[in-house]
Amino acid sequence: MNNKEKKFTAAITIIGNEILSGRTQDTNVQTISTWLNTLGVKLIEVRVIPDIESKIIETINELRNKFDYVFTTGGIGPTHDDITGESIAKAFNLKYEIHTEAFNLLKNYYKPGEFTEGRQKMAKTPLNAKLILNPTSGAPGFFVENVFCLPGVPSILKSMLGGLKNEIIGGQPVISESINLRTVESEIAKELTIIQNNNSSIEIGSYPFFKAGKLGVSIVLRSEDQKKIDKSKSEIISLASTKKIQII
Amino acid sequence: MNNKEKKFTAAITIIGNEILSGRTQDTNVQTISTWLNTLGVKLIEVRVIPDIESKIIETINELRNKFDYVFTTGGIGPTHDDITGESIAKAFNLKYEIHTEAFNLLKNYYKPGEFTEGRQKMAKTPLNAKLILNPTSGAPGFFVENVFCLPGVPSILKSMLGGLKNEIIGGQPVISESINLRTVESEIAKELTIIQNNNSSIEIGSYPFFKAGKLGVSIVLRSEDQKKIDKSKSEIISLASTKKIQII
Repeated sequence: MNNKEKKFTAAITIIGNEILSGRTQDTNVQTISTWLNTLGVKLIEVRVIPDIESKIIETINELRNKFDYVFTTGGIGPTHDDITGESIAKAFNLKYEIHTEAFNLLKNYYKPGEFTEGRQKMAKTPLNAKLILNPTSGAPGFFVENVFCLPGVPSILKSMLGGLKNEIIGGQPVISESINLRTVESEIAKELTIIQNNNSSIEIGSYPFFKAGKLGVSIVLRSEDQKKIDKSKSEIISLASTKKIQII
Repeated sequence: MNNKEKKFTAAITIIGNEILSGRTQDTNVQTISTWLNTLGVKLIEVRVIPDIESKIIETINELRNKFDYVFTTGGIGPTHDDITGESIAKAFNLKYEIHTEAFNLLKNYYKPGEFTEGRQKMAKTPLNAKLILNPTSGAPGFFVENVFCLPGVPSILKSMLGGLKNEIIGGQPVISESINLRTVESEIAKELTIIQNNNSSIEIGSYPFFKAGKLGVSIVLRSEDQKKIDKSKSEIISLASTKKIQII
């Protein structure tokens, strides 16, 4: 089986009391997920968990055995609530210590005298972790085997994904196409079930929306195979035509 | 132990390929979480899972035993990918059938002749489920024991939470206060650790931000006890003063 046939899977663990408390709106899932689509890796599960060491260890050890890739966001800064690095080290049973390359990177990043003890914490990683370079603010992320640890700040996380591309082996990218119909779901539910059953290897999603005061349904087709998308798309277009539903 | 002392916990399960694919940005977690805060219930975990029956059953059965309340979002509409109701019935080993009250509600909601077979699917729930009324678009949610099933469309979900309030027993609401400092995390990390250690029963979070081109750190204090928040707040204010850090 070559890479184009294998399905590559991923999970995300958001380490963040601030998401659970409702203080912060997560946007990193969408960023990572759309980036993974382009690499042919499918996001299968997301967990948001509190900043509690035992919970991080348990979650990471479960997910890294289930999925090809696990991404974590948050908890890699210098403060007391940044416990991702140490928790990942424990999950892998590795020492948590100063990473020479990270130390030198940060030392060069700061002005002389400014690379204080507080900042040196950001140079610690699980033993022999590989770094994920941070073009925005110096402090790197890291990865151990298939677990990739990224920061929580969305703009910094985004700036770091580019550097990771060569570390992720994926399959055929997933193609996604949408058809927006001026209708409601219950109007097309029965016919859509038939179309899904006739095209069982593609994912057909149906999502109602309200836009500019009007109801509509977005039909989303997802597959690695453009031909399969084209076939089901034409079936949906002819359904719309039969039912006199406007395509918008 | 009365309700003011017991800690009430919740988890959310987002049933949604559209979130995992990156197509849709979830906002329901923040909505539910901030609402739970006011009821004295703490959100402890979120999972985003695909529209796969076995996965829904497994996740719900795990979470409903771990937490006081479980909320699901998505998958309760009339189309083929709406499998939440049937999956929850299987998780509880209940029949999945027409709910008389839901049927009558929907029958009254639609014009004569419009309550079609496709729409009647929305009247199905696990046997003896209680309804969650939907003031926006007719189709109700439902709950079985401690599992509350809500729709995925954010505006509809929001409109349904009000009607649920009396079903949720919580404890003392969590109070949250923020202090924004014109500094970077590494400047205050050490002192903040000391303040957290001196105030171990409150949750002190530290969140860097970029706003209008400037760096800052938001310190968030969370506790059920206003006095404890006040005490740690004054310690942070005096830390800022000692370090000549501007409070913004």
